[in-house]
Amino acid sequence: MGLEEERKKVTFNVEKLGDILIPQILPNTTASRVREITQKAIKNPDLYFPLQRYSENREDTIDRGLRHGLAMKNFIKSEKLSREESRILLSLFPELTSIVLHYEFFLPSFELQASESQKAEMMEKIMNLEIIGCYAQTELGHGSNIRGIETEAIYDVENETFVMNSPTVTSAKWWIGGLGVAATHALVVAKLFIKNQDYGPHTFLIQIRDMKTHEPLCGVTVGDIGPKFGTNANDNGFLIFDHMRVPRECMLTRFARVNENGDYEILNPNALKILYSSMVKARVLIFGDSWYSMAHAATIAIRYSLIREQFPDHENPSKERQLIDYQIQRSKLFTVLSLVYANIFARTALSQKYQECELKMQNDDDSMLGEMHILSSLYKGFATAIAAESVEMCRRSCGGHGYSMYSGIPIVYTMYIPACTYEGDNSILILQAAKFITALLRNLGKGKKLPNKFAFLAEPIPVFNGIPDAACPAFHQKCFQALAHFKLHRLAQKEQKLIASGIAKEKIWTDALQVEAIEACEPLYHASIHEDFARAVENLVDPDIKQAVENLRQIYAVSKLEKFSGILLRVGLVPDILEKMKDTLIQVLNRVRNDAIGLVETFEFSDEALCSVIGRKDGNIYPAMIDASKNLNPINKEKVFAGMQKYLRPKL
Amino acid sequence: MGLEEERKKVTFNVEKLGDILIPQILPNTTASRVREITQKAIKNPDLYFPLQRYSENREDTIDRGLRHGLAMKNFIKSEKLSREESRILLSLFPELTSIVLHYEFFLPSFELQASESQKAEMMEKIMNLEIIGCYAQTELGHGSNIRGIETEAIYDVENETFVMNSPTVTSAKWWIGGLGVAATHALVVAKLFIKNQDYGPHTFLIQIRDMKTHEPLCGVTVGDIGPKFGTNANDNGFLIFDHMRVPRECMLTRFARVNENGDYEILNPNALKILYSSMVKARVLIFGDSWYSMAHAATIAIRYSLIREQFPDHENPSKERQLIDYQIQRSKLFTVLSLVYANIFARTALSQKYQECELKMQNDDDSMLGEMHILSSLYKGFATAIAAESVEMCRRSCGGHGYSMYSGIPIVYTMYIPACTYEGDNSILILQAAKFITALLRNLGKGKKLPNKFAFLAEPIPVFNGIPDAACPAFHQKCFQALAHFKLHRLAQKEQKLIASGIAKEKIWTDALQVEAIEACEPLYHASIHEDFARAVENLVDPDIKQAVENLRQIYAVSKLEKFSGILLRVGLVPDILEKMKDTLIQVLNRVRNDAIGLVETFEFSDEALCSVIGRKDGNIYPAMIDASKNLNPINKEKVFAGMQKYLRPKL
Repeated sequence: MGLEEERKKVTFNVEKLGDILIPQILPNTTASRVREITQKAIKNPDLYFPLQRYSENREDTIDRGLRHGLAMKNFIKSEKLSREESRILLSLFPELTSIVLHYEFFLPSFELQASESQKAEMMEKIMNLEIIGCYAQTELGHGSNIRGIETEAIYDVENETFVMNSPTVTSAKWWIGGLGVAATHALVVAKLFIKNQDYGPHTFLIQIRDMKTHEPLCGVTVGDIGPKFGTNANDNGFLIFDHMRVPRECMLTRFARVNENGDYEILNPNALKILYSSMVKARVLIFGDSWYSMAHAATIAIRYSLIREQFPDHENPSKERQLIDYQIQRSKLFTVLSLVYANIFARTALSQKYQECELKMQNDDDSMLGEMHILSSLYKGFATAIAAESVEMCRRSCGGHGYSMYSGIPIVYTMYIPACTYEGDNSILILQAAKFITALLRNLGKGKKLPNKFAFLAEPIPVFNGIPDAACPAFHQKCFQALAHFKLHRLAQKEQKLIASGIAKEKIWTDALQVEAIEACEPLYHASIHEDFARAVENLVDPDIKQAVENLRQIYAVSKLEKFSGILLRVGLVPDILEKMKDTLIQVLNRVRNDAIGLVETFEFSDEALCSVIGRKDGNIYPAMIDASKNLNPINKEKVFAGMQKYLRPKL
Repeated sequence: MGLEEERKKVTFNVEKLGDILIPQILPNTTASRVREITQKAIKNPDLYFPLQRYSENREDTIDRGLRHGLAMKNFIKSEKLSREESRILLSLFPELTSIVLHYEFFLPSFELQASESQKAEMMEKIMNLEIIGCYAQTELGHGSNIRGIETEAIYDVENETFVMNSPTVTSAKWWIGGLGVAATHALVVAKLFIKNQDYGPHTFLIQIRDMKTHEPLCGVTVGDIGPKFGTNANDNGFLIFDHMRVPRECMLTRFARVNENGDYEILNPNALKILYSSMVKARVLIFGDSWYSMAHAATIAIRYSLIREQFPDHENPSKERQLIDYQIQRSKLFTVLSLVYANIFARTALSQKYQECELKMQNDDDSMLGEMHILSSLYKGFATAIAAESVEMCRRSCGGHGYSMYSGIPIVYTMYIPACTYEGDNSILILQAAKFITALLRNLGKGKKLPNKFAFLAEPIPVFNGIPDAACPAFHQKCFQALAHFKLHRLAQKEQKLIASGIAKEKIWTDALQVEAIEACEPLYHASIHEDFARAVENLVDPDIKQAVENLRQIYAVSKLEKFSGILLRVGLVPDILEKMKDTLIQVLNRVRNDAIGLVETFEFSDEALCSVIGRKDGNIYPAMIDASKNLNPINKEKVFAGMQKYLRPKL
């Protein structure tokens, strides 16, 4: 059965759903503009990965990243892409490289912390890549704990210079993307010392390599930290200062400065809040991207499952059965599909909320920052781990062929998995959210209102009466809320009890409550995502599309709820309803069968973006596998592998 | 805090526990012999991986594999290692290579299927590596379904030859370990045709490369299939026959042959059962190794968590807190530790049972084969997935540094993960077990006794009375059994109902029951593992050791049981007991804190085996990281990375 045949079975208009989804993903772009840009971009081979990438060594991969960076810069210029449109290119070449990070990470960090005059001086150079920058915060011994940073910027009042120094082994800057081979400049986060007083972490723009020779400057030891699980096109680097002197102007002075007299001056008292909201923003963006890797892997796995056949088909014994026609395969892949759609709709809702929050902050109103902190931590913390597992689920569902690099899925996994760690380790983030929520619950009734998304926690726990419709979105939402209510209030009570018993609060949150706190946050996360998902489905107009997406919503809801069946019974559900929900789930898996290919092809990933022999659009996977293995694989370059004659044969 | 200080805190004698565990892992070897062999082996750098491996390209990695194979063969000979002792070497170099597979996979397959005279002719050549063999069963289009194999061996009665042919694209042999560059011979599984009659899959020993030039023979297209997620030292290959003629003697004739008249003759009517039991054995071995990758990753992660500090310590604000002193870190790592010990003890029990089964089979008694089939499928199916997740859990618990290849954990993951797929995809295996069990339950009361491990399924479901001790092994076992009982009987009832409604049994097992069947098997798996674990703890004599291991058993039991809290409530547990169990789990995590390093160092992995900068025995991780990144990383070879001058600089 070819993929063309399968496409005919889809019950809804795929392009029309694309027209709805693409503006969710790129809010100011139309689907046709995305198609236009993609079509142009794939004509330039430097803008995407070919299958050869899977055999490249790291030097080649970094080279490719550099070429890509240049091509991207030129394409953006020649096609006059907006900043948002330029992100379309990242879907063809999703790897982080020095140049991508220069634009996506260094530039906004500089913009955030530089003074107006610093921006006036540097922004054009940055935009034109006249300098290449990186953001150097993390150290060998210090990740999430920014306060623990050891790099020093010691102000010398006499010479009006900072002495940049790495006083210990653990103070080496480490993991800094783009620093290994490319960066000429680094935004260095260092502890500011003036007259022996420690003013805490501040940010400095430091030139580290010569602009002509590109050699490291005196006082700088810099290099690449080595091979990683993935993202090997990125030259993550280390940086060690040995008493390097830099001028006073190197300090970014939007928030504070050292004045002409060598005194510390606060220029913006909201610094902490603004920096804080930039961290929140980073997490919002990470959540916003969480659908992508799953959708990428699901496209490959669903196409493969339609082509691949295994074991005789009892309904047609002369042929084998398509993988997709096994219930367990449907369960694996359609659950992933439900997560893709859930995260896209929740993404829109979260982004809107963040924009609202930002707008308020610009008017000195930080009333939404707490809610945004909880949501962004919760979303980033859960979604990245779930997305990574989903990618691996897709890979494994392709059997042995999923293990081949040519399948295109392993690299999606290794490229995505650091999202569980960067911008705050998932466990730490979820714990921060939990702590914040228990504090809210502790103060219930003290006049403070709970933020919208959590308002149900202030109401009595939902009561279940009669026999609900096991497929109903409102019932599912009520279940999620009941679970979150039950677990979070218990957590808050437990915290209260521990506090009352005289244990220090810090100790409670390191030693006693972490495991249960993370567990308690999970239903809150799902309650929040599901709320957005259900509302988005409600708002779909086309009935075919609505039904197709509603199927996924049901899978999302029931597959997540059934994990908590113990608590559901304790909050009043009867076993019969749990059984009915399970039956619903099983039934809906069958309904998604014919739509599956449409639900992934909505995203219109080109073959160039997928870089997969088993996820090809034409479905012609087996000849492609033989071709790639024979002709793109350097091991087959010679008739006889050199090592055989060199090492083995003569010795036998 | 140094690791030496931490080692002093361990509450039991680590070496003594090693003396108990090593004979579980290598039943005929003493701990001191293992130490002796390891000490000698690490003097030969060809017998283990250096940190450089992480920067090697695939050609280098395959070369390394070939050199290792030769060194291993010579070491085994010079040290007169028994076959079991030779497996100690695999812990220093766990990657599968052509030579390792020659001995561990090709050789036993040949031994199993060859006639006595074929063995007399070939075994010495095989032992001495005069030929290098591989086992060629899987095809591009056919994995688990052996019946679907398309490669043909067409007997030409006139010439007394077989014509080996690959009639379709999908019939190419694929994934065959050792075939890509090394093998001179392949055991080819092909459909035997005599006079147009199809006799199904048979095995043929076929020379594929010239013994002198090593070039592929005429009629053979052979090569390496390309880069993979892991195990890249292994030259997995493809093989395409174009009407290649081979003599009649190529067919392995222990079970059947084509006689001089061109007639098919069955020589051993038990062929299927014997082949079947060899598949069971392979799964027993895979389960047997499942502890290893987890133990390896846990050693690295636990050492790292003792060295790494993060966030100020509220009990000692001038310093940071060790990672291990966060409850969530304990929960992650000690759960993995509990799985390591569970699988080691269950391994011993399963191996003994398999030996019993094999002995019986030699006396034409196959009464244990069914039970062994269920157990080996169940164990392989669940344990490999759990082990892979555990390795990834360890990696992520090391934060950013776990993402560096130098941490040594990523490669453990990529090397281990194919175990979820090979020798039967996990889902398929578990479904086979489920089908077998429901058949047993269907026939309950028809005189047939259930095998020992499942006997409780024939009894009434356990009843819970009074207030059990939440930490008691017998109570935990009863819980697991109640869960398995509840779920499997429901599954059997559901199957019966579907059969009664007229749905074909095949359809039920592809379309209707797969999801629930796999879920129903999970508590049976844990019931079986936990039974062995609890018995093994019971038998420990040294009270300190017993307590240390009992802590892990409790973690295993409760962390697995709590996943099923919904069913536990339905079979009669009250919520209070669930809460108590959770409290028990939380408490026991603290009790393991000081023992953790002892519980991993029991396995005595040398630094050479771990190949990790963050898991070093001396704990001196930060200087080692800087050293590796600076000096072993080819990206830093030149002061200025060549690609910068070549691609980027001139274009800016």
